[in-house]
Amino acid sequence: MPRKRSSDTRQLILNRAMDLASVEGLEGVSIAGIADALDMSKSGVIGHFKSKEDLQLATVGAARRLFESEVLGSIDAEPGIARLQAMGESWIRYVEGGHFAGGCFFWAASAEFDGRPGAVRDLLAELTGSWLDAIQNEARLAQRLGEIGRGEDPEQLAFELHAYVQEANWSFQLLRRQDAFLRARRAVSDRIERAADRS
Amino acid sequence: MPRKRSSDTRQLILNRAMDLASVEGLEGVSIAGIADALDMSKSGVIGHFKSKEDLQLATVGAARRLFESEVLGSIDAEPGIARLQAMGESWIRYVEGGHFAGGCFFWAASAEFDGRPGAVRDLLAELTGSWLDAIQNEARLAQRLGEIGRGEDPEQLAFELHAYVQEANWSFQLLRRQDAFLRARRAVSDRIERAADRS
Repeated sequence: MPRKRSSDTRQLILNRAMDLASVEGLEGVSIAGIADALDMSKSGVIGHFKSKEDLQLATVGAARRLFESEVLGSIDAEPGIARLQAMGESWIRYVEGGHFAGGCFFWAASAEFDGRPGAVRDLLAELTGSWLDAIQNEARLAQRLGEIGRGEDPEQLAFELHAYVQEANWSFQLLRRQDAFLRARRAVSDRIERAADRS
Repeated sequence: MPRKRSSDTRQLILNRAMDLASVEGLEGVSIAGIADALDMSKSGVIGHFKSKEDLQLATVGAARRLFESEVLGSIDAEPGIARLQAMGESWIRYVEGGHFAGGCFFWAASAEFDGRPGAVRDLLAELTGSWLDAIQNEARLAQRLGEIGRGEDPEQLAFELHAYVQEANWSFQLLRRQDAFLRARRAVSDRIERAADRS
C-alpha cells in the first residue's frame, strides 16, 4: 500500500486538533494529546510540528482557512449593503452548521487565550480583528455608495452585527436555545435596515 | 494571634479561584493548584472543598454572589424602561471595572464549559440564563407599562442587549479596543430607544 502523503497526515492532525480545541480548549491541544487521539507516536506528530505552540498556531491557521473557504467563499453578492447582509448570513450559517463539536472555534479560543500573552493570543486577535474590520469596511463602502445613511457610524454598526453572531453561538452552545440563530438573523436584518434608514 | 476563621479561609480560597478561573480557566482551578497558589497544604483546601468539582461549583457560586451584589445591588431605578437601561449600565460598569484579571468570569467559563456536560456546565447555564431572563422580564414589564411599543419582541430585545455587553468584554479582552465599553453603552441606549419608538 502506498504511504500516506505527509501533507495528508498534517491535515489529519490539524482536523483533530481543531475539533479537540473547540471542546476542550486549545490548551488541550498538545503533541502527546494529539498522538494519543490519533494513535500515532509522539515523534510522528513532532515530525510535523516542532512544539506545542507550533501545533497550536497551525491549528489556529487551519481554522482560519476553513473559515475563509466556508464563510468568505460562499458570499456571492454585490458590494455594499447586499454583501454586508450576505456576510452576516454566511457567518451565521457556518456557526449554525456545527463544523466543530464545541461550536465556534474562534469564540472558544478567544475566551481561553485573551489573558495569555504570547504568539497564539496575538494570532487570534489578528485574525478575529481582521474579520471585524472586513465587516466594518463593507459598512463603510455601503455608506459611500449611499445605501447606508450618513448618520450611521460603520464601526458601531460592525460592533453590533458582530455581537449578534457571537451571542447566537453562546446562546446555542451554553443555553441550548434552539432559536439562537433565528434571533441573530433577525437582529442582523433589522440592524442593517435601520442603518439604511438612518439619514 | 487568633486563628483565622474558617469562613474567611473559605472566602480567601474562592477569591483566588475566581481570579485564576478568569485567566487560566475554571479547569485550572484544582485542589492542588489553589493550595499551591495560596501556599496552603492540599488537606487544608480539602477541609473546605471535598473535590475539584465541589471547588469549581463553589467558585461559580461565589462569582454569582459578587455579580449580584455589584450589578444588581447598584441598580436604583423605577421599574420598566428606566430599570432596563440601568441594568445595562450597571452590568457594563461591572465588566469595565475589571473585577477579575481575565475579564468577565461567566463569559470565560461559558466558553470553557459549554462542551463539557456535568454539574458545572448546568450551573453556569442556569445562572447566566437567569440574568438573560431578568433582562427579558424587565423588557416585558416595560412593554406592559406602555413604555415599549407593542411591536417589540422582549425576547429579541434581551438577546440584543445581552449581546452588546458580551461583545464589549470580548473586544476589550482580546482586541484591547479601548472604545469597547463606549460602543456597548451606545448600542444599549440606541436599542432601548428604538424599542420605545416601535409602535
